Amino acid sequence: MRIGIADTTFSRVNMGGAAIAEIGDQAAIERYTVPGFKDLPVACKILFEKYNCDLVLAFGWTGKEEIDEVCAHEANQGLINVELIVNKHILKVFFHEKETSDLNEQKVVALDRARKHALNALKLLEGKEALTPAAGDGLRQGYNDAGGL
Amino acid sequence: MRIGIADTTFSRVNMGGAAIAEIGDQAAIERYTVPGFKDLPVACKILFEKYNCDLVLAFGWTGKEEIDEVCAHEANQGLINVELIVNKHILKVFFHEKETSDLNEQKVVALDRARKHALNALKLLEGKEALTPAAGDGLRQGYNDAGGL
Amino acid sequence: MRIGIADTTFSRVNMGGAAIAEIGDQAAIERYTVPGFKDLPVACKILFEKYNCDLVLAFGWTGKEEIDEVCAHEANQGLINVELIVNKHILKVFFHEKETSDLNEQKVVALDRARKHALNALKLLEGKEALTPAAGDGLRQGYNDAGGL
Amino acid sequence: MRIGIADTTFSRVNMGGAAIAEIGDQAAIERYTVPGFKDLPVACKILFEKYNCDLVLAFGWTGKEEIDEVCAHEANQGLINVELIVNKHILKVFFHEKETSDLNEQKVVALDRARKHALNALKLLEGKEALTPAAGDGLRQGYNDAGGL
Amino acid sequence: MRIGIADTTFSRVNMGGAAIAEIGDQAAIERYTVPGFKDLPVACKILFEKYNCDLVLAFGWTGKEEIDEVCAHEANQGLINVELIVNKHILKVFFHEKETSDLNEQKVVALDRARKHALNALKLLEGKEALTPAAGDGLRQGYNDAGGL
Repeated sequence: MRIGIADTTFSRVNMGGAAIAEIGDQAAIERYTVPGFKDLPVACKILFEKYNCDLVLAFGWTGKEEIDEVCAHEANQGLINVELIVNKHILKVFFHEKETSDLNEQKVVALDRARKHALNALKLLEGKEALTPAAGDGLRQGYNDAGGL
Repeated sequence: MRIGIADTTFSRVNMGGAAIAEIGDQAAIERYTVPGFKDLPVACKILFEKYNCDLVLAFGWTGKEEIDEVCAHEANQGLINVELIVNKHILKVFFHEKETSDLNEQKVVALDRARKHALNALKLLEGKEALTPAAGDGLRQGYNDAGGL
Repeated sequence: MRIGIADTTFSRVNMGGAAIAEIGDQAAIERYTVPGFKDLPVACKILFEKYNCDLVLAFGWTGKEEIDEVCAHEANQGLINVELIVNKHILKVFFHEKETSDLNEQKVVALDRARKHALNALKLLEGKEALTPAAGDGLRQGYNDAGGL
Repeated sequence: MRIGIADTTFSRVNMGGAAIAEIGDQAAIERYTVPGFKDLPVACKILFEKYNCDLVLAFGWTGKEEIDEVCAHEANQGLINVELIVNKHILKVFFHEKETSDLNEQKVVALDRARKHALNALKLLEGKEALTPAAGDGLRQGYNDAGGL
Repeated sequence: MRIGIADTTFSRVNMGGAAIAEIGDQAAIERYTVPGFKDLPVACKILFEKYNCDLVLAFGWTGKEEIDEVCAHEANQGLINVELIVNKHILKVFFHEKETSDLNEQKVVALDRARKHALNALKLLEGKEALTPAAGDGLRQGYNDAGGL
């Protein structure tokens, strides 16, 4: 299995590096670094089509302004479009500065989210029902799970 | 007939399970569980193209923050795009925490919506005019019907 | 000529029925009823591709909440995408509860809009300049015309 | 050269007519009039594909309500999608009632915008660098130029 | 290597010119100037498909009104769509008047952003890991870097 890591120089935390460490030797890695998250969709598409990735983790960092949120929206739409073209998953791992202004907490949340989604990636590659036992369980990345009702 | 069930580990209620119970033996089932609702579009596309589903029920759970609503919007755009690629219906069954903060009510609304849309799925598979007798009747899923004017 | 009528069980007024009555025997009719307006795009695509419609009237009813408006937006984007795939018109006839909370007025506006767009459909089928004499005339559906300046 | 004019009966000013007058005998004209601006994208696509236009001017009129702005957004997304399908320019000439509530000013702005964009159309047809001498010059349509900094 | 420069007459600063100066003789240049940023997507597509560019820098200037921000959003969606069609990068270099109303600062920010993204373009053309050493470093264009956490 080959997992793509698409990340940015805009991000203030090396989420891509954390995911690579989490994956370890459970999959081959191809990395593609771009300036900002609006550059991620085409990078992911290239990771699938030219570098034969089976799944891509895309890491974005959203600034605190409203315009940053709009750009995150554009990036996510593009990432979903890429998934529909290649019929493979992109896990869209975005940290938003709106979540917290505490710099240390920003780092903790971003790294936790990156690592948990690295594990989700490995699960998804096992098959379409690998995550079914946890359906409706209110799992969260970056924070504690909300839990099922 | 084969109905796909696409659901998430983010959801706090097992809506997919409720729909499967409602459908019973009226159709074959293929299930695909993903981390969050932005992962649903490609899962649905795979359910159609690889698992030969005739219709998919996609279950999403929208958190209470504005960013969650934006993500739900992205997921829905992607789901509609999938429908246009495969020429088949995806019933987009989303619960929004903005609807109510009462946890028990969240569960009741989500389950009612899941079950009623499971019935809608079976109706749609009967043909394009199976629901026509109820056109303009103000039907609702998750709540009581509004009724026709 | 064959006109498609795509409508919903969510709507509180039978706009599709009103349009069919207005068209009378001026065109053949194919009807497709779905649960909500987000289901309209694929229904319209099927009306064009499987049922050979030359134009489709798509009737939506938008609830009073902000989430309803977002869904209407998604539906409209999907409908425009369908038009670009099939190179034919879909008249997007949506009533929004934000327009008025008076139930009787809701009905009057929705029916007037449905009937006037049924006439627009017939005009558009005559050719690309059939409506040109009224270009810039400030015509309205659901209300009195605003008029040209 | 053949320029398409796509306009609406919703508009309160005959912007299409003003553009045709401005173009005069500098290009052949094909006109397509639709009810509202959400009908413009497919009309433009037909002007390119069936009527062999080299460029289309699309004229929209946006009402003062928030819903009107959302519809304008949908129309513009569709118009950009058409450009990407046909690899030709559509100049998107929209007047927004939010710009001014003064009816006379509405007319003045709309007509000025229509005429200036008619001239932009002729320039674009000359080649990709015909407008380069004015790059960064802060040109405006409907109002006085802002100017370069 | 061939870099496309797509810019506008709406912009109040000649960002395209600044980028060309920054690139110097490190790449061949093709320039395409359009009226406004909503015209950029198709211009970029033509720069790739007709003028064989390997990467395009697209320069937009966003006015201070809300409608301007919506248009910027539409332009960016279109630009991302072009990237997915051609499998090449478009660096989306937009200045927003909302960032600052000081005219001199507008110019300084816009030019800095243009020049830094010109350097990003050259880096991206070196390969997918040329920017990886700076992943998570919080780089910014138009302002000082935020830095890694």
